[in-house]
Parts: sequence; structure tokens; C-alpha cells
Amino acid sequence: MIETHPRGGRTRLRDVAAAVGLSSAQVSRALAGFGDVAPATRERVLRAAQELGYRPSARARALRQGSAAMRRCAVVLLGTTSEAFGRSAQGGPILSGILTQAPAERLEVHLEAVPLPPHGSSAERERAVAEALRRLVAEDRGDGFIILTPASTTQDALLPFDEAQVPYVVVNRHFETRPVNCVTIDYAFAVRAAVEHLVRLGHRRLAALLPARDSSTVRDRETGWREGVARSGLVAQEAPIVRYIDGDPGSARRVVEALLSTGLPGSGKIPTGVVCHTDTLAHAVLQAASAAGVRVPEQLSVIGIEDVIAEYLTPPLCTFDCHLHQMGVATAALLGWALEERGAAPRREMIRPELVCRASCGPAPAP
Amino acid sequence: MIETHPRGGRTRLRDVAAAVGLSSAQVSRALAGFGDVAPATRERVLRAAQELGYRPSARARALRQGSAAMRRCAVVLLGTTSEAFGRSAQGGPILSGILTQAPAERLEVHLEAVPLPPHGSSAERERAVAEALRRLVAEDRGDGFIILTPASTTQDALLPFDEAQVPYVVVNRHFETRPVNCVTIDYAFAVRAAVEHLVRLGHRRLAALLPARDSSTVRDRETGWREGVARSGLVAQEAPIVRYIDGDPGSARRVVEALLSTGLPGSGKIPTGVVCHTDTLAHAVLQAASAAGVRVPEQLSVIGIEDVIAEYLTPPLCTFDCHLHQMGVATAALLGWALEERGAAPRREMIRPELVCRASCGPAPAP
Repeated sequence: MIETHPRGGRTRLRDVAAAVGLSSAQVSRALAGFGDVAPATRERVLRAAQELGYRPSARARALRQGSAAMRRCAVVLLGTTSEAFGRSAQGGPILSGILTQAPAERLEVHLEAVPLPPHGSSAERERAVAEALRRLVAEDRGDGFIILTPASTTQDALLPFDEAQVPYVVVNRHFETRPVNCVTIDYAFAVRAAVEHLVRLGHRRLAALLPARDSSTVRDRETGWREGVARSGLVAQEAPIVRYIDGDPGSARRVVEALLSTGLPGSGKIPTGVVCHTDTLAHAVLQAASAAGVRVPEQLSVIGIEDVIAEYLTPPLCTFDCHLHQMGVATAALLGWALEERGAAPRREMIRPELVCRASCGPAPAP
Repeated sequence: MIETHPRGGRTRLRDVAAAVGLSSAQVSRALAGFGDVAPATRERVLRAAQELGYRPSARARALRQGSAAMRRCAVVLLGTTSEAFGRSAQGGPILSGILTQAPAERLEVHLEAVPLPPHGSSAERERAVAEALRRLVAEDRGDGFIILTPASTTQDALLPFDEAQVPYVVVNRHFETRPVNCVTIDYAFAVRAAVEHLVRLGHRRLAALLPARDSSTVRDRETGWREGVARSGLVAQEAPIVRYIDGDPGSARRVVEALLSTGLPGSGKIPTGVVCHTDTLAHAVLQAASAAGVRVPEQLSVIGIEDVIAEYLTPPLCTFDCHLHQMGVATAALLGWALEERGAAPRREMIRPELVCRASCGPAPAP
């Protein structure tokens, strides 16, 4: 047992060091969890610190850290509220990933919800985003920014960051003409794998259900679909991409009803498998199929992408786990890197989705 | 148009002040968004700051703030991983709420996942929690702590915080014998309201499905159930609390199967309504009912509590929106208060749930 408070008053780092026979620097490194301290030494230091009632001074630590101080990270939610984002399937995993990695990157994280006009042309939207971001920069809301958006964002909308040379990372979007730091999901891989999975089950008449808007998340799925259809030797008219209007639940339902009653647009044949843009869309497809008396998976196989709500659907949904927590970790790590390496060429990190088989896919029905 | 970079080099606060004819202090307050600055003035300052290319220095701001510096807030996840928490129904809303309020409380938020032995007695668990928290305090992982736990926590497990006089807030738990700062959901209100809702629909034979463990989240529901049953004049044996083993999906299914086949334990009558501990349990109930050929809501009405996955269930679930985002906001605000008012008597904030009617409840079937 170590004598407590040997000097009276608040226990200092040097008291702990004296008790264990190490230097103050060694004790400090042990308490901070540095990897170059032997586990046994660390245990001994922690025990002594506890017994002596040592508590590091946050003020002293901040002074010591100097240039290694925390960097403020604003997670910008474009066109959504922080409440809606928190409730969304992506919200929890991405935030938990960012917060898990934040200490290692010395990031202080907070949310900045940026409302956008719900309607208007894409040019108007781009101007509104740019204006909002310019304001965040002018108000110094972060040393670095993470951009999350439920809908499309153009590169030009992000110019305020480039002009001010403020590091930022875009989540789930990339741009072809000018690279930015971004973390994306390999949707092309997922959709290609979905096609190949259905073809292995004997399906030959398929549809991809994608929203009628332009963003990299849609384009990457289109690429994967075309590759999967070509590799599998399917007839193009029997494996089309079918569009619905994003944000209009009735649109998806009507498109599915038409597919199940009048068949594929090019051939009039009823599809036996559908690959959906997201699990939320797959939910609408399952509801429409149920309402039309179409049995899943006996008459129709359905695959989604995301894997947060999938296990709660009826039947439980085959989908791709997009490792969204890992995406959040990679995003914080990339922003940490961008804050260190200002001016370096932007990097793109890619997350590979993984097929999770449940009950919504089965062998193709007999023709 | 304002002349840019009047002095050459980096634009300083005083350059902006000179351009708009205000003092540096006024410009600083305008940029920081203080409420005592007129909106028009703020607009003028922001525009001038943009045109002059002014960017505040984070270092200068930190020096100015002095005692108003950021406080490190560790969100402690007891017995779960940050990934599992992020995927859980509560994770996204609670984290988004905490992060939304964090800047106002000057909190830097990060996650600390604390693994716990999956088995063992409650005394062993309490020791493991206390040991883990003692270590977080010794390692100075936060200036204040937020405690989240999927299972029971005792007060004694939290003693390390009290001994070190470190402020903390417990989420979704309260203790009767010794108050702590906590934010809880008024589950008693929700369960009482659920009973009354079912009774209004004509139901007289009900069951509450609650886990066989002791925590305030279970006890509060028991209180609400007993009050609701008494107020509605139901026969106690026809409205019992029925227990299942938490964390064992088979247990809930077996309990529901028994209820639907051999009836309520006290009376042998088949219940026509079930109030579930959570929406996840309600999902298991809906699956068991479907497997047993029991139609919801025609033969059985089901109510859950939480409202994150409820809309994706079949049929869409009647439940209580627990305003988890608001709970996160209140948690960060309470920790901010506790960091200011050290030694003040602990406070308990209560969130009132709200009934969300969907398709899983209907009139009681004819006897």
C-alpha cells in the first residue's frame, strides 16, 4: 500500500512517479496509454495513481499538448435535421464510427444541420448549399468538416471549402472531374454481386429499381448493374434499370405494381427478381408485392442494400451490409489525415459491402 | 465592395471591424452568433468577413476563451461495442441529440466502449463495471461522463465517479435510494396509456411482457401496468405481467406461444392484447403470432415502446415515440449543468413518450 497524499493537498504527477520509481514523462505516457509502455508497468502506474488519488489536470494537459491540441470537426448535415439523421438507418452507425475514431484523430465532433429549400432547380440547390457552407467557414464552425447529405451534391457547391483551404471529407459521394477527400461504398460491387447471386439461383428476368436522380451513389449502382448483366449473359431488355421518384413513396409503389402486372418495360415479361436501391425501397417493394398477392421469395426474389432495418422486414431481407460504422471510422481517420497533410492530393477510401442472406431470395420459379 | 486585404497578409479581426465601423469586440460577438447582435448587423459583419477573406484563428480563440474552454465528455457504453450501439435503435437518435447540444455545452464528445463479462452474478457484474469506471477516471478519459448501458447497472457500480467527484449523467436509468443526475423516459406513463388505449378498444384480457431482470426501466413499466390495470377496473388474473429471459430470443417466442395456446397463467384465458417491453420484443411477438396463425390485430392487438423500427414491422406497430433525440439533447444539457454546478443536488429529467397509432391494434374480438 502506497502512502496517500505524501505532500498533502492535490496529488501531482511527480508524486505518482516517485511512488513507482519512474520519471514523470514515463508515468504520463503510461497514463495516456501509449503503446511503448509495457502492460505490467502501465498496470503498476495505474494502481499507484488510483491509490494516491491522482487526477491529471485538464488545464495542464492542454498546455503540454500545445500544437497537438484538439481540432474541431463539424459534421454537416445538408438538407436534413439532426433528429431526422439520428433516426435514419445510416445515422447511428456513421456517428458511432466517427466518435469511436475521434480521440485518435484529436477531433472534437459536433453536428451542423443545414436546412435547404425542399424544391427548386439543381442550380438553385447548388447555390443554397454553397451559401450555407460559405457561412459555416466564415463563422469558423470547424477546423475541418465532414459532409453528409441525403441527396445530390455537386462539386461546385463545395467550392467554399476549397477557396478557404479548409479540409473536408465527403461521405458517400465522389466526383469524377475533380477528386475530393471522400469515403464511399463500393455500390458497383454490391449490385454486380446481387445480379450474380440471382443468376446463380436461376433468375433470368430482373429489374434494378433506382431513383431518377443523378449522384455518384446512383451511377455506381448503374455501373455494377450493367457489368453484372453483361457478365451473366442476360438479355438487356429482360434486365432493365427501372426508375422511381426519390422521396415520393407512392412512386415506388406504382412502379412495382406496374412491374408485377404489366411486366418489364422492354419485354412485357414479369420479372422474378428485383435489386433495390436501398432497404427502405425494398420495404416498399415487399409491401407492394404483398398487396398484389405476389409471394416473396416463391414468385419474386428481392435484394436490398444497407442492412440496418433488413432483419425486421417480412420476409427478412437479403441485403448488403455496408459496414457503415467502419465508414464512420474511415471518415474521421481521413479528416485527421487531411488536417495534418494540408494541400496533399485528395484520397478516396472505399468500403466493400458484404452479402447477408436472409429469406427474401429463392430459386427462380419454373417458367 | 470592400477593399480586400487592406494591410496585406492575413486579414485580422480589426480589419473587419474597421471595414464595418464597429469595435473588434462587437465583430467578435457578431461572428460568434451572440443573441444581442441585431440580425442586420450580423449579416453586414459576415459579408465583410467573407469579402475580406477573414478566418478566425482557432489558437487566438482558445486563448480568449480561457476558463470557457471545451470540456471532454466520454459517452461510456457499458457491456456493448460502439458498433453494436450505433446499429441499435437507440444509438442514432441519442448520439445525434448529444452532438446537437454539445457545442452549446462546450462538450467534446467521444465514445468509450467498456466490455463486460457476458455471464456471472450481478455482484460480479457490479465489480466489473466499477473497475472499468475507476480506470476511466484514473486515465482521465473525460471531464464528465455519460453512462449508457443495455442492461442493469447498480448505484454502487458508479461509486468511482462519486469518489473522484467527477460529474456524470446516467441515461435511461434512475435509482431510488440515492439520486444521481439522470435522464429517463416516463415508462410508467407509456404503459399506463397503453393499457387505457386497449381498454378503450374493448379489451379486457391483457398481458404485459417484461424481462425477468431488475432495473428501473422494468420497474417503471411495472408501476404503469399496475396503475393502468387498477384504474381500468380489470381483473388482476386477466391482466398479469408475464416474464421472458432478456437476450434469449427463444424465450420470448416460447412465452408468446404459451400465451396464445394455453392462455394467461392465472386464468387460462387467451389474451386479446399484449404490451411489449420494447419494439424489438414486439417484433418477436408478431413473428410468434404469425407462426401460430393468430391474426394481428383481428385476434391480437400488440403495442410496443420505442418507435424506431416500428414502421417496418408487419403489421406496422402501434408504439410510443420515446423522443430519443430529445433525450440525447437533455443528457448533454444536464452534463453541461453538472460540470458548472459541481456539488449541486442531482437532477432527474424525464421524457414523456407519445402514442403513435399504426396497424397493430384494433377492437377486441367478440368473446
